[in-house]
Amino acid sequence: MKQSIAIDMDETVADTLSRHLEWYCKEFGVSLNKKDMKGKRIYDVVSKENLDTVKNYPNHPDFFKDLPVFEDAVSVIQELSIKYDIYFVSAAMEYPNSFNAKYEWLKQHFSFISDMNYIFCGYKGMLNCDYLIDDSSRHIDAFNGDGYLFNAPHNSEQTNYKRINSWAEIGALFA
Amino acid sequence: MKQSIAIDMDETVADTLSRHLEWYCKEFGVSLNKKDMKGKRIYDVVSKENLDTVKNYPNHPDFFKDLPVFEDAVSVIQELSIKYDIYFVSAAMEYPNSFNAKYEWLKQHFSFISDMNYIFCGYKGMLNCDYLIDDSSRHIDAFNGDGYLFNAPHNSEQTNYKRINSWAEIGALFA
Repeated sequence: MKQSIAIDMDETVADTLSRHLEWYCKEFGVSLNKKDMKGKRIYDVVSKENLDTVKNYPNHPDFFKDLPVFEDAVSVIQELSIKYDIYFVSAAMEYPNSFNAKYEWLKQHFSFISDMNYIFCGYKGMLNCDYLIDDSSRHIDAFNGDGYLFNAPHNSEQTNYKRINSWAEIGALFA
Repeated sequence: MKQSIAIDMDETVADTLSRHLEWYCKEFGVSLNKKDMKGKRIYDVVSKENLDTVKNYPNHPDFFKDLPVFEDAVSVIQELSIKYDIYFVSAAMEYPNSFNAKYEWLKQHFSFISDMNYIFCGYKGMLNCDYLIDDSSRHIDAFNGDGYLFNAPHNSEQTNYKRINSWAEIGALFA
């Protein structure tokens, strides 16, 4: 039986932070980039009165449209899918209006993974997979298998996790 | 730590068969009821030329609207939620246009269960829960924990499973 890898979406394969920054800067005329985000989530840096607006961005049907895939994610996951069962696991319940956009985005970029292997959930403690790759330490904390923290500005100061910096690194690790 | 129960939606808490029969009979002027369905799914009884139409019903936004909840499901699950972690686990990936309707239906009828405990998936073999209550034997086959087959016309002739006939029976079993 193949081992299984659960792969998060936002900030693990999908560059949602770029979209957040793009929309926030455009709407509120501010200048922010990824370098300003060390140790912070987007919600930590926006002003209090704009917080609800920014928190709602992922519910917009266009948020996922044309969203970049992280470098090497497609080719590495395609290679891994030969040896492992791959699941895409997104805490999509946090953004109930994002279901269809997330589904379409996965279909578009990872057509070689069956949609039967997509999981939209809230809590990731109920996953019965061998590995989880995720940018959120709280999901790795809840997970019962072997978790890897995918490097992101907001988690850059967290030291208690096995950090992975790129999809190329994942390819080598799971080869 | 609480034990966990994963609960399927369609034909386990939601009476989707009634809606299927209602729409099919109305659209094609036929007469069918649950008694005609012994050992059969709706897709086994509709004529070949209407199959695609009927298969597409659950993708319609109104399919889940006003859909009945099975008797005692709400009160029993509310009681169980004190002692167990409850997850609603639907193979919603089979009907990608049903995500929002399913989400709203669960919110409407089971507001006491956090949406963080909803899981929309395809395959249920990746669930790390103690129990699964499901009308589909294939999901119980894939599940790693202790599975109970919720009685439905289509599964009435399957004998290799622990069968549960009602939510009242579930309430007594897990008390």
